[in-house]
Amino acid sequence: MKILGIDPGSRKAGWALIEKDGRKITYLSSGSLRYDKIDNFVDRLGVIYNSIQELMTEYSPAVVAIESLIYVKSVTSLAKLAQARGAMIAAIVQTHSGKVYEYSPNSIKSTVTGYGHADKLAIEKTLKMIFGQIEFKTNDESDALAIALCHALGGSTNVAGTKVKSSSRGRTLKSVFKDREKRS
Amino acid sequence: MKILGIDPGSRKAGWALIEKDGRKITYLSSGSLRYDKIDNFVDRLGVIYNSIQELMTEYSPAVVAIESLIYVKSVTSLAKLAQARGAMIAAIVQTHSGKVYEYSPNSIKSTVTGYGHADKLAIEKTLKMIFGQIEFKTNDESDALAIALCHALGGSTNVAGTKVKSSSRGRTLKSVFKDREKRS
Repeated sequence: MKILGIDPGSRKAGWALIEKDGRKITYLSSGSLRYDKIDNFVDRLGVIYNSIQELMTEYSPAVVAIESLIYVKSVTSLAKLAQARGAMIAAIVQTHSGKVYEYSPNSIKSTVTGYGHADKLAIEKTLKMIFGQIEFKTNDESDALAIALCHALGGSTNVAGTKVKSSSRGRTLKSVFKDREKRS
Repeated sequence: MKILGIDPGSRKAGWALIEKDGRKITYLSSGSLRYDKIDNFVDRLGVIYNSIQELMTEYSPAVVAIESLIYVKSVTSLAKLAQARGAMIAAIVQTHSGKVYEYSPNSIKSTVTGYGHADKLAIEKTLKMIFGQIEFKTNDESDALAIALCHALGGSTNVAGTKVKSSSRGRTLKSVFKDREKRS
């Protein structure tokens, strides 16, 4: 079962793909996404959508695990992060008939290291232990791998993470549109 | 020139389509969108994306005008609104080769009524004056018409609104993806 982990962001993001086969967990691929060169935020949201859509199309993961929204200090940062995350999730749901799971940072740390307030080093240690030496170009990339691993370790009975089952594909839009008659 | 106004939201939203032909502005259609019956927020973001995509495909507006992000009191509400707006803008940019304009609530009120802190009644009065009697089912619908009208009245020289030119269609994703080589 292919699991795609996504560390969302509006300026940069990370992704990691792993394979879970019974108890065996294998690293497949990972990478960073950079959006900060696109100054226009509307344009950037379009590119963010496209980048996630492309990942989904290329790897067709059975499961997507994404970090839940972090309530960052600055409201402006939160607004940008949230809009980026909205575009990302829209892209996932459009191209994905499986489930989308959300995990909080604490739940990820706790599942991966056993301690909810673990630092980066402790997480990297676990990642190295399980996957061997991987050269991460960015923290977003290793964070995404930790998110994917969190799902793989937690499996379907993990209650630490907030699990959100998604099944909107093919949903009818009729209930959404109200009062659409043309008037003049 | 067809102008689509959108009043974004995560529980409900509004849209309105007008035609601007020289100085003549005509009402074409408008409606409300309701998302609050979809409890799962990931699913809801997918439906939000689909609903805007459907509007864009059906009406092919030359211009889209959307209300800028309002910094609502509750951080949780802001996070939901921002994610919904991100999904909406992603849908617009995907299906739209034209421009996307953002207008702040004050700029909309100021352009439509001449007063930045105008109340709903003052706005409705202007809408009635320009378009005649329209029965709005929700405030989101009339707000969306005010947003479209704001763009039509401001035209290309209005500096009150934050104008965001969008042109991300067809943008290459090469610069976004970094370090994508497969490792094992």
